[in-house]
Amino acid sequence: MSESIYKIGILIFPGVTQLDFTGPAEVLARMPDTEISLVWKTLDPVTSQFGLKYYPDAKITENVNYDLILVPGGFDCARIMIDPEVLIWLQEQSRSAEYLTSVCTGSLVLAAAGLLNGYNAGCHWGWAEHLKKFGANPTRERVVIDGNRITAGGVTSGIDFALHIVERKCGRELAEQIVLSIEYDPAPISGGVPETARTEVFDMAKNRIATLNKSGGHINMIDEAASKLFAI
Amino acid sequence: MSESIYKIGILIFPGVTQLDFTGPAEVLARMPDTEISLVWKTLDPVTSQFGLKYYPDAKITENVNYDLILVPGGFDCARIMIDPEVLIWLQEQSRSAEYLTSVCTGSLVLAAAGLLNGYNAGCHWGWAEHLKKFGANPTRERVVIDGNRITAGGVTSGIDFALHIVERKCGRELAEQIVLSIEYDPAPISGGVPETARTEVFDMAKNRIATLNKSGGHINMIDEAASKLFAI
Repeated sequence: MSESIYKIGILIFPGVTQLDFTGPAEVLARMPDTEISLVWKTLDPVTSQFGLKYYPDAKITENVNYDLILVPGGFDCARIMIDPEVLIWLQEQSRSAEYLTSVCTGSLVLAAAGLLNGYNAGCHWGWAEHLKKFGANPTRERVVIDGNRITAGGVTSGIDFALHIVERKCGRELAEQIVLSIEYDPAPISGGVPETARTEVFDMAKNRIATLNKSGGHINMIDEAASKLFAI
Repeated sequence: MSESIYKIGILIFPGVTQLDFTGPAEVLARMPDTEISLVWKTLDPVTSQFGLKYYPDAKITENVNYDLILVPGGFDCARIMIDPEVLIWLQEQSRSAEYLTSVCTGSLVLAAAGLLNGYNAGCHWGWAEHLKKFGANPTRERVVIDGNRITAGGVTSGIDFALHIVERKCGRELAEQIVLSIEYDPAPISGGVPETARTEVFDMAKNRIATLNKSGGHINMIDEAASKLFAI
């Protein structure tokens, strides 16, 4: 019976951007015979970037093989990029998972595990350039598909990513039904990507990211991860 | 100090549709000096519709006065519509809150508390007609503003709703910055509302809702709530 369940493992970590995975989870959970597990090193509560707490369903040490691995992002993904325990777990999962996926800066974590070397990959626009340090080719599309690596852009891209997975796994009709069920007929203020944002807004957002990355030491961690990549 | 904090209280309940509030929370948390609390009758974990667990930050009996009340939806909101303890709490909050808001079928809960009588209101398209039973005027807009009642359509409407709140409270520039930060440049499959969905997809989605509502007894609960409305 459990053989017929499609197991999705979402890696969560302290500081994770919750919408990176809660958007996809809302969509992916509507696929039949699908089980979504939040996975982390311990079962202790994990506090996301702005305070919402999540309780892992499983530990990475349990060595469950997931059919689809999803890595969400967040500023603090940089800490995960230098965490051998997590990187080795991702490498192990990559041997059996049907899909390795990420949303936002989660792709940097896949990259740090050496799993995007030579692949096209999506990422939050503010961090995409760092993918090159890991041999990945940053690609400015909302959902980037390269083999069994499916990686999405920033935060809300996760919803489009998940709908792509549903269509791929279960067909267009279920994807359309879910779109209607979640009334996904967005009416955004324009400027959701650097290409359409007003210059002053882009500059402020970019400066904010740079300031937070500097105070958090994230770029140093990314560079450390890159220096270790081929030694893992 | 705490006087300057903008307190947002999100009512959660068993079976809640998590994206109804996790989308808004991701946006609203980016307003300065804002505190978001998940509120329920107890501090025990609350399991959302597809299994993600949330831990309340506060109990409704604590009688905190929130500046903004947000009620998310979900099939099981019908149970909340006949829960006097929650309805009375909402009525009490309505006396001091700056905004009473909802996403998806959460507007039915506000309605059951008598708080949308005479108001235009948004709702998930599959349930909007029931608003009339509570004296509300269902309005087919993604974000419906009527006085201090701001009510959104189904699930993903919550993101647009929250950006509206940010713009209203903190100005357009911050809203644009958040749009860019969460890369809100959606690329949906068309058909996110009944008006654009393919007929067969709409029929299947409508039938699914009807079947689940029937097996769950939700419409009976909604009608019971309506019959009690003016007696509360």
